[in-house]
Amino acid sequence: MGKKRYVGVDLGGTSMMAVVANEKGKVLGESDSATDRSSPQATIDQIIAQIDGALADAKLKASKIEAIGVGAPGAADPKTGVIAKAPNLGWTDVPLGPILEDRYGVPVAIGNDVQVAILGEHAFGAAKGAKRAVGIWVGTGIGGGLIADGELERGARGAAGEIGHMVLDENGPVCGCGRKGCAEAYASRTSMERDVMLRIAAGRASVVPDIMKERQKTRMTSSVMKRALAANDEVMKEVVAAAQRYLGLLAGNVVNMYDPEVIVIGGGVAQRLGEEFVGPIRETARSRFLRPDPDERVRIVHAGLDDYSGALGASVLARRNA
Amino acid sequence: MGKKRYVGVDLGGTSMMAVVANEKGKVLGESDSATDRSSPQATIDQIIAQIDGALADAKLKASKIEAIGVGAPGAADPKTGVIAKAPNLGWTDVPLGPILEDRYGVPVAIGNDVQVAILGEHAFGAAKGAKRAVGIWVGTGIGGGLIADGELERGARGAAGEIGHMVLDENGPVCGCGRKGCAEAYASRTSMERDVMLRIAAGRASVVPDIMKERQKTRMTSSVMKRALAANDEVMKEVVAAAQRYLGLLAGNVVNMYDPEVIVIGGGVAQRLGEEFVGPIRETARSRFLRPDPDERVRIVHAGLDDYSGALGASVLARRNA
Repeated sequence: MGKKRYVGVDLGGTSMMAVVANEKGKVLGESDSATDRSSPQATIDQIIAQIDGALADAKLKASKIEAIGVGAPGAADPKTGVIAKAPNLGWTDVPLGPILEDRYGVPVAIGNDVQVAILGEHAFGAAKGAKRAVGIWVGTGIGGGLIADGELERGARGAAGEIGHMVLDENGPVCGCGRKGCAEAYASRTSMERDVMLRIAAGRASVVPDIMKERQKTRMTSSVMKRALAANDEVMKEVVAAAQRYLGLLAGNVVNMYDPEVIVIGGGVAQRLGEEFVGPIRETARSRFLRPDPDERVRIVHAGLDDYSGALGASVLARRNA
Repeated sequence: MGKKRYVGVDLGGTSMMAVVANEKGKVLGESDSATDRSSPQATIDQIIAQIDGALADAKLKASKIEAIGVGAPGAADPKTGVIAKAPNLGWTDVPLGPILEDRYGVPVAIGNDVQVAILGEHAFGAAKGAKRAVGIWVGTGIGGGLIADGELERGARGAAGEIGHMVLDENGPVCGCGRKGCAEAYASRTSMERDVMLRIAAGRASVVPDIMKERQKTRMTSSVMKRALAANDEVMKEVVAAAQRYLGLLAGNVVNMYDPEVIVIGGGVAQRLGEEFVGPIRETARSRFLRPDPDERVRIVHAGLDDYSGALGASVLARRNA
């Protein structure tokens, strides 16, 4: 008799995706959209439209799903389902959990977007089967998450996994968090964009502005980065190499402290560039391992579920909460 | 009838201590000695003398103990009890576990000295009752250990907890491990000694050489450090403040990644200087917390068992293995 099905929503500041998936992570239906941030209500209506779209795509009625999970760019209270703060959405105190529960009549679980994506990679992707894994997600910031005994580690205050805010040089650049020298201040996509623009402002030649113009991008997206690297742009090569160096130091720190089986590097840049991005990170990280690892037991790899880490992870969150 | 009793041995490169303790961490007998490193056999004979001494002090026959635990400055194979390498003892492939088992007829467990000390602090000291705790031990090097759900975390390869080798600046000083900029290269007692001697070599005035001469020390021990600080020695104050700064960054990294309830700072320097040492570390660490902690839920404290963290921790290891 029919397997159980779950809805997973990956809610981002720039785009969102809903999937209907079974327990094995098979996507039965999906729907995505750019995120309308004109008002919380507009965004919520859009989330509902994507869920309905994914259900339609899967040819399922809403009554056939067991639960809904959402990965959101902000902290939701696990008890109330209220998102207190999601700066990338412009949200304050939005009761997304109760709204979706009212509408669909199933349990709704909301988690942090990066931690949910890592849950997805652990259930179905690059960290599948690992008891001990760490995710490092490179995007606007650098997020992270720890998995021990196959479960997300929340820490004593629910604050574990903020790997992007480990300091790599206390005299380093100012981070989005206001402190200096965090890994995020060196190696997030935002920091790489800053470093490219600083070099251009200093008179260096680069194809980046042309690519952004041509593709009508106001930000240096990961696809812009990929094109610039393909065009052998020296500025981009330098900046990416520096970010890889810092991410390698960070991954080395994580291994020395936490000793995971696998580190999954995710987010847009890792997804677009794949091994080209992760290879040098791995090399630097391995040079920092205190305990030698000649058999390469510690894997450092890019995420394996392409655009689906977040939505499939949210379906896992849904299942755990059902 | 009668509680169970365990022997715990804290085996260090400069001194060793054996205790007989009950399950509650009460020391019933003890014996200690400077470590004779003239040969492995000499050291082993001495360990046996301390165990016998602690038993005599407790007025107990060897047949009345359940098990023996040892915290050793090197890695022992948990299955064979052989210490493959203990540089501070000059040992290679010493079967300490089997030797003690043959002699006393009880199970013998051998663990890493720092991790065993953290186990002691968790069972009876500053981390008592914590589900999630981290120890940072400042000595010749900087060791560490993680406790989750009340148990030592070994990691996927048994290599977790090497907090002293997190990089704080990749262009920093060379570490004992051969890499650059590890926390240990900034803030171990050895590194502090190097920094004091460099300042003196550069012509700065300091009472440290006089104190070392007067106390017949060839190393800048933690008692020398305490005296120099009490004498308001500017060089020592500078060097300790710099080490505290780096240990604070390190503790902040640990909190952002691992989110423990408590970080215990141990080792000779923390033990001698107490809150004078830990206070500034706490202040720097808290300035780096990504998740604000207005209620000071995360405690950063010095070890609570004085000289007994290691030996009592070894008695816990013994009990777990009995």
